[in-house]
Amino acid sequence: MDIIQQVRQGDIRATARLMRDLDEGDPAAREILKGLYQYTGRAHIIGITGSPGVGKSTLTDRMIQLLRQQGLTVGVVAVDPTSPFSGGAILGDRIRMQRHATDEGVFIRSLATRGHFGGLTASSRAVVNVLDAMGKDFILVETVGVGQDEVEIASAAHTTIVVTVPGMGDDIQAIKAGILEIGDLFVINKADREGADRTYQDLVNMIDLRQPNREDGWRPLVFRTEAPKNLGVPELMAAVFEHRDYLRREGGRELARVMAPRLRGELMDLIMQGIREQIISHMLSANGVKQILADIAAKKTDPYSISDEIVAQLRRRCDL
Amino acid sequence: MDIIQQVRQGDIRATARLMRDLDEGDPAAREILKGLYQYTGRAHIIGITGSPGVGKSTLTDRMIQLLRQQGLTVGVVAVDPTSPFSGGAILGDRIRMQRHATDEGVFIRSLATRGHFGGLTASSRAVVNVLDAMGKDFILVETVGVGQDEVEIASAAHTTIVVTVPGMGDDIQAIKAGILEIGDLFVINKADREGADRTYQDLVNMIDLRQPNREDGWRPLVFRTEAPKNLGVPELMAAVFEHRDYLRREGGRELARVMAPRLRGELMDLIMQGIREQIISHMLSANGVKQILADIAAKKTDPYSISDEIVAQLRRRCDL
Repeated sequence: MDIIQQVRQGDIRATARLMRDLDEGDPAAREILKGLYQYTGRAHIIGITGSPGVGKSTLTDRMIQLLRQQGLTVGVVAVDPTSPFSGGAILGDRIRMQRHATDEGVFIRSLATRGHFGGLTASSRAVVNVLDAMGKDFILVETVGVGQDEVEIASAAHTTIVVTVPGMGDDIQAIKAGILEIGDLFVINKADREGADRTYQDLVNMIDLRQPNREDGWRPLVFRTEAPKNLGVPELMAAVFEHRDYLRREGGRELARVMAPRLRGELMDLIMQGIREQIISHMLSANGVKQILADIAAKKTDPYSISDEIVAQLRRRCDL
Repeated sequence: MDIIQQVRQGDIRATARLMRDLDEGDPAAREILKGLYQYTGRAHIIGITGSPGVGKSTLTDRMIQLLRQQGLTVGVVAVDPTSPFSGGAILGDRIRMQRHATDEGVFIRSLATRGHFGGLTASSRAVVNVLDAMGKDFILVETVGVGQDEVEIASAAHTTIVVTVPGMGDDIQAIKAGILEIGDLFVINKADREGADRTYQDLVNMIDLRQPNREDGWRPLVFRTEAPKNLGVPELMAAVFEHRDYLRREGGRELARVMAPRLRGELMDLIMQGIREQIISHMLSANGVKQILADIAAKKTDPYSISDEIVAQLRRRCDL
């Protein structure tokens, strides 16, 4: 049986091997990814983002559990150095995750470095595509919501969940600084802590203010959860299903509209990554490179002038 | 007087305007940046990184103060959505920062988005170059040490300070996951909290383990600080000076060795950003693009095959 069939039938070892080979830039693995792409598009992708310590992983754990109880299969992509899913975090969390490790309906993949695709975003997309082709019903992508790449990855999901905790002034401010725009659902986790009501009100007010700017017309919802006790998590999951239905209304036209610019971005990133190696090896294997770098270091020239020159050369050469 | 002279003489309004113009991709501003480059290379650049909430900003504030007391000038680049320097964080912190706002010896610039340079790393480098040419003795670059870009930015400094707090298992693990490699100096801030001794011992042990892998031979130091009380901060600053001297030994040969691959990376990023626009407008303004995206969405083809095709076309066209 070929690898495409093995992955489609949920073969865990074959899938894990494929992902590793993709990371290492194996050309054969890339051909398999091409072959798998036609089977993507079925999964609902959920981005979960928030600062370290807000309890994203426990929440993810509970969501996996709820999905599994409904007989749905789950893929997890952890792009978070502090996540127990990616082998980070403290021992207790990691042990808790083990229960999913033996569940054939759950496939967990962690991403720490850029790998062959040249960016966390592109690497994460490749993994999501494989999990999607594998037939997973839901794919949860967990990122720390502070880095720019990480915010981008989470916001590339169908449904983006932003997680915070009560009383963290910093967090609310961080949300203001850019994360508010990307959230479809907001979670105040550890809602038994003091200040939950105020954080709730702050979030609702901020969402109200920005509602007129939302192109998709979706009204973000705010949930209070205590993930370890599973409080509020079923309500959150219900809202995920509601948002999924919202995107799929009118025969999926809305979903297509939302995903189109992302597809364009994905294509562009792949092209730039593909041509980057060629340009680097061409331009920098030229004899003059050591001299160029020495000249820049000696302030005889500057990287901006040199890059302008090389870009102009490339434009002429390629007739762009 | 031209803008280059104004910036070199520390004109705050001219410098602020230049930075804004650079962000917006103004070609004239880019020419000025070229002209300024020859005046760079004097400043000592300090990267300060760590999770939100570890007190990076208070520490930065204290370091600014110590440097100013010695009559040294300071530039600050805040690439941290939770930093009061970048307008995030809570009100108290922001008010505390105001005292530097009226000090002509301190110039603060925050970076939130990619801007014209196409990446936070490249944008941050451009700002550092301007501050350097402006004549600032020290440049402090503050980032949240969780995103990949952010870690990269901090590690591109001459001296990288990794900040953590006691008893945060998560943080130590996050450090393990990649931040340990980039630190020249480590700070356990809020050292009055329980668990400081253990965190100290953990860090020292981890550094010992990795010491044989360090190419530069520098032995990272660990400091316990209570930034609001200024405890430990003078010792940390002394170590920064020590590390600076270490890099500048042998007539700066070590510094040149450390900076060479970074310069190469800077040049590559600039070239790729320069050519990106050309390639995008050339490849995607072609009539077929809408059709290509529709075909991908319909799973008739896939982004990997299309990007391979376009890259191959470009290679032929450019004879690469």
